[in-house]
Amino acid sequence: MSALKIAIIGGGSSYTPELVEGLIQRIEELPVTELALVDVEPGREKVAIIAALTQRMLARNGLEQVKVSVHFALDDAIRGAKFVLTQLRVGQLPARAADERLGLKYQLIGQETTGIGGFAKALRTIPVMMDIARKVEQLAPDAWIINFTNPAGIVTEAISRYTNAKIIGLCNVPISMHHMIADMLKTPYEQVQLQFAGLNHMVWVHQVLQNGQDVTSKVIDMLCNGATLTMNNIKEKPWPPEFLRAIGAIPCPYHRYFYQTKEMLEEEIASATEHGTRAEQVMKVEKELFELYADPHLDSKPEQLSFRGGSFYSKVALELIRAIHNNLGLQLIVNTANRGAIRGLPDDAVIETNCIVDAQGAHPLTFGKLPEPMHVLTQQVKAYERLTIEAAVHGDRRSGLLALVTNPLIANAQIAQPLLEEVLAINNAYLPQFK
Amino acid sequence: MSALKIAIIGGGSSYTPELVEGLIQRIEELPVTELALVDVEPGREKVAIIAALTQRMLARNGLEQVKVSVHFALDDAIRGAKFVLTQLRVGQLPARAADERLGLKYQLIGQETTGIGGFAKALRTIPVMMDIARKVEQLAPDAWIINFTNPAGIVTEAISRYTNAKIIGLCNVPISMHHMIADMLKTPYEQVQLQFAGLNHMVWVHQVLQNGQDVTSKVIDMLCNGATLTMNNIKEKPWPPEFLRAIGAIPCPYHRYFYQTKEMLEEEIASATEHGTRAEQVMKVEKELFELYADPHLDSKPEQLSFRGGSFYSKVALELIRAIHNNLGLQLIVNTANRGAIRGLPDDAVIETNCIVDAQGAHPLTFGKLPEPMHVLTQQVKAYERLTIEAAVHGDRRSGLLALVTNPLIANAQIAQPLLEEVLAINNAYLPQFK
Amino acid sequence: MSALKIAIIGGGSSYTPELVEGLIQRIEELPVTELALVDVEPGREKVAIIAALTQRMLARNGLEQVKVSVHFALDDAIRGAKFVLTQLRVGQLPARAADERLGLKYQLIGQETTGIGGFAKALRTIPVMMDIARKVEQLAPDAWIINFTNPAGIVTEAISRYTNAKIIGLCNVPISMHHMIADMLKTPYEQVQLQFAGLNHMVWVHQVLQNGQDVTSKVIDMLCNGATLTMNNIKEKPWPPEFLRAIGAIPCPYHRYFYQTKEMLEEEIASATEHGTRAEQVMKVEKELFELYADPHLDSKPEQLSFRGGSFYSKVALELIRAIHNNLGLQLIVNTANRGAIRGLPDDAVIETNCIVDAQGAHPLTFGKLPEPMHVLTQQVKAYERLTIEAAVHGDRRSGLLALVTNPLIANAQIAQPLLEEVLAINNAYLPQFK
Amino acid sequence: MSALKIAIIGGGSSYTPELVEGLIQRIEELPVTELALVDVEPGREKVAIIAALTQRMLARNGLEQVKVSVHFALDDAIRGAKFVLTQLRVGQLPARAADERLGLKYQLIGQETTGIGGFAKALRTIPVMMDIARKVEQLAPDAWIINFTNPAGIVTEAISRYTNAKIIGLCNVPISMHHMIADMLKTPYEQVQLQFAGLNHMVWVHQVLQNGQDVTSKVIDMLCNGATLTMNNIKEKPWPPEFLRAIGAIPCPYHRYFYQTKEMLEEEIASATEHGTRAEQVMKVEKELFELYADPHLDSKPEQLSFRGGSFYSKVALELIRAIHNNLGLQLIVNTANRGAIRGLPDDAVIETNCIVDAQGAHPLTFGKLPEPMHVLTQQVKAYERLTIEAAVHGDRRSGLLALVTNPLIANAQIAQPLLEEVLAINNAYLPQFK
Repeated sequence: MSALKIAIIGGGSSYTPELVEGLIQRIEELPVTELALVDVEPGREKVAIIAALTQRMLARNGLEQVKVSVHFALDDAIRGAKFVLTQLRVGQLPARAADERLGLKYQLIGQETTGIGGFAKALRTIPVMMDIARKVEQLAPDAWIINFTNPAGIVTEAISRYTNAKIIGLCNVPISMHHMIADMLKTPYEQVQLQFAGLNHMVWVHQVLQNGQDVTSKVIDMLCNGATLTMNNIKEKPWPPEFLRAIGAIPCPYHRYFYQTKEMLEEEIASATEHGTRAEQVMKVEKELFELYADPHLDSKPEQLSFRGGSFYSKVALELIRAIHNNLGLQLIVNTANRGAIRGLPDDAVIETNCIVDAQGAHPLTFGKLPEPMHVLTQQVKAYERLTIEAAVHGDRRSGLLALVTNPLIANAQIAQPLLEEVLAINNAYLPQFK
Repeated sequence: MSALKIAIIGGGSSYTPELVEGLIQRIEELPVTELALVDVEPGREKVAIIAALTQRMLARNGLEQVKVSVHFALDDAIRGAKFVLTQLRVGQLPARAADERLGLKYQLIGQETTGIGGFAKALRTIPVMMDIARKVEQLAPDAWIINFTNPAGIVTEAISRYTNAKIIGLCNVPISMHHMIADMLKTPYEQVQLQFAGLNHMVWVHQVLQNGQDVTSKVIDMLCNGATLTMNNIKEKPWPPEFLRAIGAIPCPYHRYFYQTKEMLEEEIASATEHGTRAEQVMKVEKELFELYADPHLDSKPEQLSFRGGSFYSKVALELIRAIHNNLGLQLIVNTANRGAIRGLPDDAVIETNCIVDAQGAHPLTFGKLPEPMHVLTQQVKAYERLTIEAAVHGDRRSGLLALVTNPLIANAQIAQPLLEEVLAINNAYLPQFK
Repeated sequence: MSALKIAIIGGGSSYTPELVEGLIQRIEELPVTELALVDVEPGREKVAIIAALTQRMLARNGLEQVKVSVHFALDDAIRGAKFVLTQLRVGQLPARAADERLGLKYQLIGQETTGIGGFAKALRTIPVMMDIARKVEQLAPDAWIINFTNPAGIVTEAISRYTNAKIIGLCNVPISMHHMIADMLKTPYEQVQLQFAGLNHMVWVHQVLQNGQDVTSKVIDMLCNGATLTMNNIKEKPWPPEFLRAIGAIPCPYHRYFYQTKEMLEEEIASATEHGTRAEQVMKVEKELFELYADPHLDSKPEQLSFRGGSFYSKVALELIRAIHNNLGLQLIVNTANRGAIRGLPDDAVIETNCIVDAQGAHPLTFGKLPEPMHVLTQQVKAYERLTIEAAVHGDRRSGLLALVTNPLIANAQIAQPLLEEVLAINNAYLPQFK
Repeated sequence: MSALKIAIIGGGSSYTPELVEGLIQRIEELPVTELALVDVEPGREKVAIIAALTQRMLARNGLEQVKVSVHFALDDAIRGAKFVLTQLRVGQLPARAADERLGLKYQLIGQETTGIGGFAKALRTIPVMMDIARKVEQLAPDAWIINFTNPAGIVTEAISRYTNAKIIGLCNVPISMHHMIADMLKTPYEQVQLQFAGLNHMVWVHQVLQNGQDVTSKVIDMLCNGATLTMNNIKEKPWPPEFLRAIGAIPCPYHRYFYQTKEMLEEEIASATEHGTRAEQVMKVEKELFELYADPHLDSKPEQLSFRGGSFYSKVALELIRAIHNNLGLQLIVNTANRGAIRGLPDDAVIETNCIVDAQGAHPLTFGKLPEPMHVLTQQVKAYERLTIEAAVHGDRRSGLLALVTNPLIANAQIAQPLLEEVLAINNAYLPQFK
């Protein structure tokens, strides 16, 4: 039997135990032979804790034969890998906290994917991801990069357009919505099908099927009557029923940033004042998690991980790997190049939609044109994303400025230049491309 | 358990026993309760033979409970049906023979789907299919029409654009190519996947996967080295290797009409001289088949049916019905509205490509743009098809003339008008829309 | 010589004397035989003053033979007209003031073309313009409607899509920019050519030619170094040089609403607090103008009209009429259906761009795709405009709600519904379509 | 006053005296200072005859100050030129005759622009034109190349896409049609306007205006009633009235090759049998012309030149040069990059349509989508042209094969390969790119 090596870049992440648990559950279909955990030097202690916990979890399930290796450089980890999972965070949580604080200063959404925070994170992350992809091209050209790193759509598109590495991006929003809607319908998850189309963190559910029957308007009615669809890191706030009925689709939780900008900003300000920013809160949760993980008696994923956010990450990643590895042709929701699936976006623009996944990767189902109000918003956000990619890949200030002017959460020519300069200054250590 | 009634329009066709055999094999997943065979008065004798044979075949398999009804009008047959299969032939084989003879007169391809024959057949068939679709709209609005009637792409598009009936078109070319390529690769059918995109009877295989690995160029090499891919009603003639390698995809047998027009015409002339036209030959085969069918001892599909052409019709139809009825999400090759799957064709143009089929119908996988030489040929043929539909639905001579001028197998302004007039005169009895 | 009758709907406008002056200057090429001034009953006094002044102006130039008629109904005025100029204001200036006050209440731009003000004005104006167009279809089907009425792009598109009347929309922004840029270059107006493309009140200058040579970047440099390009009703505020250089084109003054929204809103608030809203200020100017116009000794356009804003209206209107009437093929900047000139906008979307104008109307020069940041903003604003047209023509609340959510100056799902209801309530008297 | 040098590549052509005559007539607006005639060594005698005749013509008009220089290399001729006219013929008339004979052998249209002849000529011509364009880039980067060399559309596109030289292509078909239609209408040329859109030698007149009024259907009626529109090198054959009325536009004479292929081929065969091929006939005419030109008493363009074909070449070239040189903004029919003017063709595809010509070159008026039957034919021919350009620029056999298969006058996979090989063999001396 051939080797099945999986490299996990950002292996010291607190999410890793969930991945390990998922792998153990699927070991028959995914007979993994090695888990290569990669992290940066400053994360040495964390990754050691994770590696030890991983070994205990494997052992408990009689899987001592699976090798667990730890790396602080890419080459040995990537060489021979079949899958390379990227779940890294350049600058760690302090960089994220700085983005959020910058947003507060300018009265802008500072959240890590959609606004100025997402922009700054993209600039920091893309150079590191490019390095990884170059190594994959060279040392494991048949491997698939499975990217979770946010802003996942932008990062996936940068790699997909600027390298020859094979990459698919993932997010837990679609699967979370799927679970929440199935719960609303009191129907098993497997009997509900959803049609997604949009961009990462700006994706709509266009159709809900319950045992093959279209129940979209029923679900919209339930949402109009008070049901909510929120993830634990975005505060619940029901949509105005007139808006939901007019738009005729189900927005994802992150749509609040675009359609309730003022209200979301007020919440961010209030929450930061009371509890610190989201990153500052997460730092506390992480500290507690690693204390748990370090316990030599722990040999399974602890309950508390579910409070971290990011539920179902493990499930979407492993279902994707399973579909590719076994050429299954499963229908999954992933981030991949458009190729015409959504009208009016470039072929190489990464979108989030229903795909058939087999050994050749992800093949999007045809969606056609988004309804006009979604179409123009999606075009605008994608234009912002692509300008951001240009800025991040080439260190190009002009593209950076135009990105900020084009982002509908910023869209101001007056502040664009000082804001850009401040992003570059704060993140100076992580932006070699702008040197 | 709810009723599962299937209506078969053109039930007296010699193909029906194959369908019945397929149904018997799938009776667990498709627990059919009634087969309603519909035909025209002149076919009364044939449909009676088929009905009796059907009952014998069912009885042999212990399925006496399945009702077999015979109809010479649509209403009772369609009312309550879940699926309506259309496999009719307006004007029977003599009309087809007249088309072929007209082609010979003008030195044009007279074959029943691609050239002047296909044009005449579309004009005759579309009014009858419109009547059927209107009845379905009214009496069985949730039913799916499963159309085999040629020219299948044109007929399916006419119904799909001009009625609200739900329709999917089928052809046995893709499945036949799939079987032939699997045989060439000496690999089980299930381990070979093909990516099709094009129009009915003008479809290409763009990619061949063997256990998930791309072997397209290997298959092209085999074809260059003498392997052939021909169906028993199109004469074998290998493609020039330089052409196959340049085009980089696998043409379907009907592409010979477009890329080897002169040679195919010469063959048609020679064959008609020696054996009569294709329709004239088929009339003999049919006669023999019905003699067999009438034998009261026959209670299974006879071997000789396989010489008729149209192998695998039963399989593609029943797999499609199975996928819809059980909401399976199978990947099948069908004729359905484009909706953006192939770039540059109208959304409502019917194409032939890989689709996911579930209870909501067929959802095409995104293909993107066909390589340029195929793209422009496909655009031209689709333009011809749509002009033909306009002519057939509205009885519009101008569209008819432009259709003939646009069809690359005719494409002559000098003969277009006399040719059109001759088609209308010969088929006068079947063209109420031109009255 | 045939009659050349021109109808002016809103003939009692304070702008009319400028038009009359322009006509007198061009009398040889435009041998007008009748000016039919149309207004509403409440404007009886004003239109009488204008008619009398017009007659005195004509007499002073020896043109007593030109008939001046006054109408309070459309039929007689439109019958036999060759051109119908529309410069009306439904609800007069008080309705505009109410829009501006509504904007202030919601902290939104209330200006009469771009924000909530433009939306309300479109809802009020389109039904009246539809009536006019229906009369033109019936009584003067060869006549051209020359529309100045704001929001000019939206109004022109509504008529162009929903009637068969021939219409061209006009704005004084392009000609004003042309004059200002020529002045900056210290070059005669005629030796400067500008390439415009965009939407009304959201148009960019993409290229500046001085005697045929491209001097675009020189002009951008001048703007970066302090030159300004502002019209007397939009306050001067220089663009950040980095923004101008990055965008590489010259924004029109109204772009400030989109790219400096926060700053413009602050100015509107400050200005309204100090001097009243723009409409409230204009009411005073108008009162003074009509006092002047009523002076029986006045027989030419008074100097003070130039403070009213709207300079060059007369020139653009009369050059357009001259080009059509004499089949000249002049290159003019007008609002007309896109037909492919700007990529990615619908064919029937009204755009503002360079056109060749002859007896058959306006023929846009091909522009191609707007640079990405402009392209997505233009798409978004055009989507807003089209939703507004749907709301205005059909009295459709759903489209109205989606229009507000799509307008980038509003774009908030939370306030959209109350805001819409308030617009409908305030303008109740002018919105028969919502009854 | 600055120098105005015009280089004429292929200066020894029999057409040159017409150009010289046109220049003399426009000397005030085009104060030319030097005419640099360039030819190949084998044409030394001819170019000497032309240079001497040119000098006599100039002298007769008192324009001795205009310098006439003769060159057998490009550098000195191109350096300092403002315009570079290309009217060359690689391989001279014998190469053309060989193409025509090859066509006859394969029963294909051998004419020098549309069929196998045009393909062969493109392969021969493009390398030479690329050399010229490279010299222009280097030695006269502001100069405009004015290209007449056939196939003019293909050649112009090759240069426009693969070099930075500025180029506009010209043809005498549009102006000839304009003159013929004006004659049919018994109206002065200046009072008739035509809207052209299509490709070179495949262009349609979509609208005819007579003094600004649309008379298109009147002209079509005249053509249906026997009026013909033929050029002296394409034999007259009226279009079937039903075809003309159905298509609703006026085809150019070269459309006969596409819509009456069989008939045209029969004529070519008959004519070649009786008089030799077209090239063989032209060789005789040319011989006679040069005998005339050599007469030292001749100091004006002789009457006999008009029998050569190519009437109005001088007029279209000089009007174009006049419009550019004087920044006039004239509306002319030229070959230039599409940029969106005709829907569905690439931006960089060279089309033939109405353009505004000024100092910045040619700016196409927006046409929109061609009616469907023309759209698909145009797409197909443009695809052929672009494959031919790939073959010609890169010496790529695969593109050459696909070009032949895509050309609707060939379109046969069986003969494509032997035909391609024969073209390459016959033209071996002129095809360095295939070495």
